[in-house]
Amino acid sequence: MSFMQKLEAAWQTGNSLVCVGLDPDLSRFPEAFARTPDAIFAFNKAIIDATHDLVCAYKPQIAYFAAVSAEEQLEKTIDYIKTNYPRVPVILDAKRGDIGSTAEMYAAEAFSRYNADAVTVNPYMGYDSAEPFLKHRDRGVIFLCRTSNSGAADFQDLDAGGAPLYERVAALIAGQWNANNNCLLVVGATWPSQMAKIRSIAGDMPFLVPGVGAQGGDVEQLVKAGQTAAGTGLVISSSRAILYASGGSDFADAARKATVQLRDAINHIRKGSGR
Amino acid sequence: MSFMQKLEAAWQTGNSLVCVGLDPDLSRFPEAFARTPDAIFAFNKAIIDATHDLVCAYKPQIAYFAAVSAEEQLEKTIDYIKTNYPRVPVILDAKRGDIGSTAEMYAAEAFSRYNADAVTVNPYMGYDSAEPFLKHRDRGVIFLCRTSNSGAADFQDLDAGGAPLYERVAALIAGQWNANNNCLLVVGATWPSQMAKIRSIAGDMPFLVPGVGAQGGDVEQLVKAGQTAAGTGLVISSSRAILYASGGSDFADAARKATVQLRDAINHIRKGSGR
Repeated sequence: MSFMQKLEAAWQTGNSLVCVGLDPDLSRFPEAFARTPDAIFAFNKAIIDATHDLVCAYKPQIAYFAAVSAEEQLEKTIDYIKTNYPRVPVILDAKRGDIGSTAEMYAAEAFSRYNADAVTVNPYMGYDSAEPFLKHRDRGVIFLCRTSNSGAADFQDLDAGGAPLYERVAALIAGQWNANNNCLLVVGATWPSQMAKIRSIAGDMPFLVPGVGAQGGDVEQLVKAGQTAAGTGLVISSSRAILYASGGSDFADAARKATVQLRDAINHIRKGSGR
Repeated sequence: MSFMQKLEAAWQTGNSLVCVGLDPDLSRFPEAFARTPDAIFAFNKAIIDATHDLVCAYKPQIAYFAAVSAEEQLEKTIDYIKTNYPRVPVILDAKRGDIGSTAEMYAAEAFSRYNADAVTVNPYMGYDSAEPFLKHRDRGVIFLCRTSNSGAADFQDLDAGGAPLYERVAALIAGQWNANNNCLLVVGATWPSQMAKIRSIAGDMPFLVPGVGAQGGDVEQLVKAGQTAAGTGLVISSSRAILYASGGSDFADAARKATVQLRDAINHIRKGSGR
């Protein structure tokens, strides 16, 4: 099953557009993990077990593993999801991008070593930097378009021949890079009007939407701006607001509650959620 | 000593603008390495021992390590350079870029875990994605500007309010992001006229220049376009043409010869090389 099929099925079976971002920050873990050898994997496992039926995807952020030499725990985390909850696709958030020969190695990192279903990629270097990812037809390639952070405006909003750069990025990807129907776009929750514009350019292409929760994006506005006619098309990612909903021993229960809350808030707005 | 001071000193002591890119591709290693357990480190060590007096920097490309779970060999490679040839700065080629909280983790990966003197960064997400790197005043932050690959034109050349995007990138970095004097730009060897324009925008800011060797950039044109008044300002990186100059047991000698050749070709053109 391709990533796109898996995502479509996950939206339906879970009746959810929520993606839990796995940004394991040791300094924010509950006390009990301080003396656990594989603390990151143990924490992720508890979060996954508590939320798997509520999500359409998991999104481990590789930087949180790489900073502390925990690649093996990233491998274990992804393997745990694939073994125990195979319906849930895994997005490796890595924002890679390099010349073709190097991009081949990054694609091997994401798709072979970590066996991710999809990976985030930075489009700045152009088509030949994307092609080594795109040729994996069964995997998703999620390009930065209009990101959620304040600095996004520095370059993404520059007028590029009559339209802001991020619209040019969306148009080129939707029009030319998506021949294998395996492209998605990162569109920050914090910019609903830009999201509506990108939706009009990109058809039903799914958006990965960071920026709800800790970053303050408004759920109602983003769902109205970004949903497709089917009431899907969005992978709405929350990390810190779910992972660290409680810093105590009830962190997994608190994470479940925060995920239910976000799922319901989204379903309350979107079309066809069957709520 | 800051990265910038270390680079300036390395240009002088080695009388060289050459950077050897460490892109260790197991499939291209000489036969003898097939049965070595730490093949990547052993190969890198041989290349480093054969070229250390001829270079102004080494540039390990992290993708070649990550694709084959060889992070430990990357650590050992950098540690080997720092212990044995401390005059030579190490640039980690990683092209990272993410929102601030994640960029903090990537900065920890590059500067704490790997102890690199400098790292390459993708500017697409804007200032707050760069700041966690920039605040390390003693390290170098090398932003993609006009890259060497053919796809670079897709977005970098778009007219962004009267100037191509890459010029806007160069101007913002030179004008605003370089408050700690620790920024550099990636400017491909394959585009000498663009390089000359970027030099006129960026003052004496050093350029990391990939694209000679396997990618075909012309040395004479790029040096004339990119050198500063002092005849430096360039870190000219060659990877495959040096590492795989010979596929036989003489690979280290062949790498040395290829490095000497590139160094001399550059010094023949540039000002003040004392040749």
